[in-house]
Amino acid sequence: MARVLTGIQSSGRPHLGNILGAIVPAIELIKQNKEESFIFIADFHSLTSSKDGALRKENTLAVAAAWLAFGLDIEKTVFYRQSRRPEVAELTWYLSCFTPFPMLANAHSFKDKSERLSDVNAGLFTYPVLMSADILLYSADLVPVGKDQLQHLEMCRDIASAFNHQLGEEILTLPEPRISEEVKIIPGTDGQKMSKSYNNYIDIFLPEKQLKKNINSIITDSTPLEEPKNPDTCNVFKLYSLVASADQTAQMRKNYEGGNYGYGHAKKDFLALVLEKYAAERKAFDFYMSNPEEVEKKLSAGEAKAQEIGMQLLQQVREKLGFA
Amino acid sequence: MARVLTGIQSSGRPHLGNILGAIVPAIELIKQNKEESFIFIADFHSLTSSKDGALRKENTLAVAAAWLAFGLDIEKTVFYRQSRRPEVAELTWYLSCFTPFPMLANAHSFKDKSERLSDVNAGLFTYPVLMSADILLYSADLVPVGKDQLQHLEMCRDIASAFNHQLGEEILTLPEPRISEEVKIIPGTDGQKMSKSYNNYIDIFLPEKQLKKNINSIITDSTPLEEPKNPDTCNVFKLYSLVASADQTAQMRKNYEGGNYGYGHAKKDFLALVLEKYAAERKAFDFYMSNPEEVEKKLSAGEAKAQEIGMQLLQQVREKLGFA
Repeated sequence: MARVLTGIQSSGRPHLGNILGAIVPAIELIKQNKEESFIFIADFHSLTSSKDGALRKENTLAVAAAWLAFGLDIEKTVFYRQSRRPEVAELTWYLSCFTPFPMLANAHSFKDKSERLSDVNAGLFTYPVLMSADILLYSADLVPVGKDQLQHLEMCRDIASAFNHQLGEEILTLPEPRISEEVKIIPGTDGQKMSKSYNNYIDIFLPEKQLKKNINSIITDSTPLEEPKNPDTCNVFKLYSLVASADQTAQMRKNYEGGNYGYGHAKKDFLALVLEKYAAERKAFDFYMSNPEEVEKKLSAGEAKAQEIGMQLLQQVREKLGFA
Repeated sequence: MARVLTGIQSSGRPHLGNILGAIVPAIELIKQNKEESFIFIADFHSLTSSKDGALRKENTLAVAAAWLAFGLDIEKTVFYRQSRRPEVAELTWYLSCFTPFPMLANAHSFKDKSERLSDVNAGLFTYPVLMSADILLYSADLVPVGKDQLQHLEMCRDIASAFNHQLGEEILTLPEPRISEEVKIIPGTDGQKMSKSYNNYIDIFLPEKQLKKNINSIITDSTPLEEPKNPDTCNVFKLYSLVASADQTAQMRKNYEGGNYGYGHAKKDFLALVLEKYAAERKAFDFYMSNPEEVEKKLSAGEAKAQEIGMQLLQQVREKLGFA
């Protein structure tokens, strides 16, 4: 059974875009039980951009809580925090000695970031080596990546190749990329792609009052209440249809086209839908956020499994390099 | 009591130059008990240049055996292998996110190495961060460095400063360099500085027959046997005088100046002196080399002490960064 490894960012609680685009599809795939799944929260990586420890802790908790709330089955997946398996840092050192310096220096993402960011630290530079260690430590066969991460996966394969070649043994598994098919773009409140960095996201875990405010911030045009409206150019309709059933969507389309149905009504209906559809997930999320020890318990179980598997590989690498 | 931390290379068994220049003085200092001493074998570092695991293991054993043979008191020093305390790799990741990329890119030693070496790997580039982690993990106050390492120690201080400053707390101790006073240059068999890379070293741990051959390879001039010789221009005399007592040296000077004393005689006397003076150390070295489990026992004890101390600091760092 192929082993699929997915790293998820620890940059805060997932918004509706993350949920529809990543969490729900991943959890569905895991339910089908056709692959062995590893999912980890990449909190080590987050240190390249944020030094705020309290925030990182809170964000990591929120990410875990969201995945668990949406029903991630921790019996069927190894779910863990990157930072709790420090073996990955040791492997990073080993791999870095097999990583040509110019390869890192020529990475698109580093070039891009070093032009954009003010804090150009060495972690940002060596990030592809850490990412390689994340993958290689667990001998992952498949890694879902966006197009922007494809070069990093190529580097991982190159590093693993160089390592195996120099040591004359196929110790590290070369991972294949699983390039996400054209993910449906989830629009944000302003119609652009929903993204934390655009600050245009819908946070379905907000308390009702704040969620209402959040949904009311969706930008609409100024067609008067009584006039018919075009659902296909409306952000509220688009978001509604991503969450709703086919019947519900057809009904709303009718409402739009019939007139006497304002954007305020549509937002109200969208709010009601979110509250109803995600009632259980919202409750579970709140539970986990106020009972972090429950999240800790689940993550610790995953970390114990990850340790067992990772240590086997690490031990082999240590032997081979003369560190055992 | 100031804590002094010394990293020693794991590039093979120490030669007479290492012994007279580093091991004996360090062990003397430790005996005086005025400082707390940490000495580690930098085997992680050696991976930047050598990928041969079996050789690394052998070399690490030989380095440990030599220090122990010369009487390193492991009650008074924490003696350990870098690789057996992988906490240092984790700290390296943390520190790398506080290390400005341009600082590493501008390091003299990297520039120099990247021009000279064919294997310019990322480990070579991030080496100063690993060195910083070596020092900072144990809150060392003082680090003996040669002039060529002074910039690396400066970097370590800069990284620690940046870390403390950004986190608003003096967690990491800024180490001071102890610049080795003009170390007496130990000449090699060709009169240049004795060095593994010049292949001009005297290996006092060789079996007698090979040691004789080794000493016979010392280059001398062609002054005939019967003529008086100038001791001050002779490599044999220089080496002899570094090992001998004042009386023995005075006697050999007389022999040189008196004539009828050939370089063959001088080499024979030097061999006899080495065999006599280092009899116990040679025996102990052989013992450790054929009983690696005894070395393992001593290193493990040091590694347990190192772990206890290093984990305290690491735990503090983890807390502060949101990884605990």
